[in-house]
Amino acid sequence: MIYLDNAATTYPKSENVYRALDEANRENAFNSGRGSYKAAREATAIIDDAKNKLRKLANASDNSDVILTPSITVAMNQILQGLDFHRGDIVYMSPYEHNAVARVLHLLEKRIGIIVKELPLLPDTLEIDLETTKYLFAKDKPICVCCTHVSNVTGYILPIKEIFESAKRYNSYTVLDTAQSFGLIEIEKDWKIDFLAFAGHKTLYGPLGVGGFINYHNHMLQEVIVGGTGSDSLNLDMPIIGTSRYEASSANVVAVKGLSVALEEALLKESYETEKELLKYLVDKLQEIDNIRMFLPPEDKHIGMVSFVVEGYKSEDVGMILDEDYDIAVRTGYHCAPNIHKWLKDEEYLGTVRVGLSKFNSRKDIDLLCDALEMLCS
Amino acid sequence: MIYLDNAATTYPKSENVYRALDEANRENAFNSGRGSYKAAREATAIIDDAKNKLRKLANASDNSDVILTPSITVAMNQILQGLDFHRGDIVYMSPYEHNAVARVLHLLEKRIGIIVKELPLLPDTLEIDLETTKYLFAKDKPICVCCTHVSNVTGYILPIKEIFESAKRYNSYTVLDTAQSFGLIEIEKDWKIDFLAFAGHKTLYGPLGVGGFINYHNHMLQEVIVGGTGSDSLNLDMPIIGTSRYEASSANVVAVKGLSVALEEALLKESYETEKELLKYLVDKLQEIDNIRMFLPPEDKHIGMVSFVVEGYKSEDVGMILDEDYDIAVRTGYHCAPNIHKWLKDEEYLGTVRVGLSKFNSRKDIDLLCDALEMLCS
Repeated sequence: MIYLDNAATTYPKSENVYRALDEANRENAFNSGRGSYKAAREATAIIDDAKNKLRKLANASDNSDVILTPSITVAMNQILQGLDFHRGDIVYMSPYEHNAVARVLHLLEKRIGIIVKELPLLPDTLEIDLETTKYLFAKDKPICVCCTHVSNVTGYILPIKEIFESAKRYNSYTVLDTAQSFGLIEIEKDWKIDFLAFAGHKTLYGPLGVGGFINYHNHMLQEVIVGGTGSDSLNLDMPIIGTSRYEASSANVVAVKGLSVALEEALLKESYETEKELLKYLVDKLQEIDNIRMFLPPEDKHIGMVSFVVEGYKSEDVGMILDEDYDIAVRTGYHCAPNIHKWLKDEEYLGTVRVGLSKFNSRKDIDLLCDALEMLCS
Repeated sequence: MIYLDNAATTYPKSENVYRALDEANRENAFNSGRGSYKAAREATAIIDDAKNKLRKLANASDNSDVILTPSITVAMNQILQGLDFHRGDIVYMSPYEHNAVARVLHLLEKRIGIIVKELPLLPDTLEIDLETTKYLFAKDKPICVCCTHVSNVTGYILPIKEIFESAKRYNSYTVLDTAQSFGLIEIEKDWKIDFLAFAGHKTLYGPLGVGGFINYHNHMLQEVIVGGTGSDSLNLDMPIIGTSRYEASSANVVAVKGLSVALEEALLKESYETEKELLKYLVDKLQEIDNIRMFLPPEDKHIGMVSFVVEGYKSEDVGMILDEDYDIAVRTGYHCAPNIHKWLKDEEYLGTVRVGLSKFNSRKDIDLLCDALEMLCS
């Protein structure tokens, strides 16, 4: 199989990650922090070590809480449902948001009566329109601004620094979704992030089963998922202080150990350059094929994936042909990003064909894909 | 290490489970149901297969929804926060409930104004007082009754059939926590269960990172965790029909494959008899040691673990000595079960010492433990 669905989950992971996972299953799968014995303390140490690495990668201070969750979806729910919104509060999100953000905000719209607004795009390039954004924030002040770092549909890198800078003029919370960027694009210290949510199994090249968030300023969140924390057990309320408030249930120390090894290998610059080069190669080759229409961000704001449509085909049919006739795995459809498609105008194709790259892909993978697409279009 | 904290998480798992996990990491860690290619469909098939096995083990009908979650804690939150409770609704729970139930109900008490009541116990044996239960239900009718199948503190097997039978007279919802029983004690068809929540990594001998619930009658639940479902992506609401309503985010197909292999090995009768025999051996030996006071349920209603205190010691000190001097791992404290300790009256010991057995323990493990305890008490 030629695997080009890396924006869904990266594959493969490194051999070191696979070995760490096997080892952790056999030697470390204990209940961290809940036992008074060595193996439990070792599990806790594995978790603390991973948290330190995550803190560093996120350019967060030593005091910032790192909360581990089973997925970035759970992390986003804990952040957004945990913020103490009230009726009429205005929450902005970019039109590129994934349903892990968009559906949570929609739920809060229905339940609490928050008002969800979208950041504006420049119609030509589909970049965030920063000037209009500033105007909108001044007019309808944000309580919270949610932004994905990299679009999981087009690979567009959003101008996080500028957006959050504008948001912070109104003391807004800022929430960053790094599912498609963490470990690939540097997170700068001056970006004014309150919450950074991450997925372990995508650009970090870790395993399924672990995600989380950095709470840069340790804002207190309301409980979303509650349960046993292995501490203060007689108290029916979740702990007020510390990360265990947000970490009910047995930690998945196996996935955390795999992630920890992946984090050691997260060479930001190297991964970025490998992918950037592959991406350019892919874009150039696709450009040569008639009947393919790409949804391209400006070149210097683009990483990780390309979305396109093939004239005359539903996108799912392109995916099916690539799978059945060429054993090439791409993703087709709307990619759980509900709002960007009105800008892409891809609905007559039932969404896009998305080619998601990883640092383990090669030019040969791209050649095979493009050969197949040429056959299809000819 | 002599591992006797199996009520927290069973260790080891079978070699087949370890191999399946390694294989799944290397070959099946794809995004199930979201891709249009073979590897994604294989991931979906792994999940469907596990669900069929779970349905069978739960004695549920072919139509009952099986929802996979990252843990039983998340499952309990999805069930209890998902039921459409209103102010004044009366929800009963047993005094044996874990914080995965007790803290969720307490949250709903604070947020919605439900009234949480406890099932009564017989003061001598600490069994559920079924007669008084019936009386209480008649007086203050239950909207929902939550019960753990086996206490994670004393190993007491609760009379689920009788409790739920009484609850159903008032058309109450019934929620069963099988963290300490699934795969070990048979779930009978006539128990009138609405929701059965399970943990993968305890009595099922599966990996960390997967739990879930059986929705026997497919009651509709409100959304608790929302996000991408890989389907109907343009819809900002979660799907109304099907299990994807409750399964936002990428499924942890690796953990599911491990669980699926574990389920093949879940030999109810054999596990039960192995553990029952070990338990009797343990109880008999502990009984011979002066200064140990066990919290024993009636013998025919007891499985999996023994909790005790040692006169003159805080329980955590017993745990520390067993760990440091004998490399024996037990669990000490309150075991995330907040309400039973007022019945056990173990607070002067800061909770109990709990010895949790697995089918992989041996008489020798118990001998070594009891030798150590004898030294401690002599």
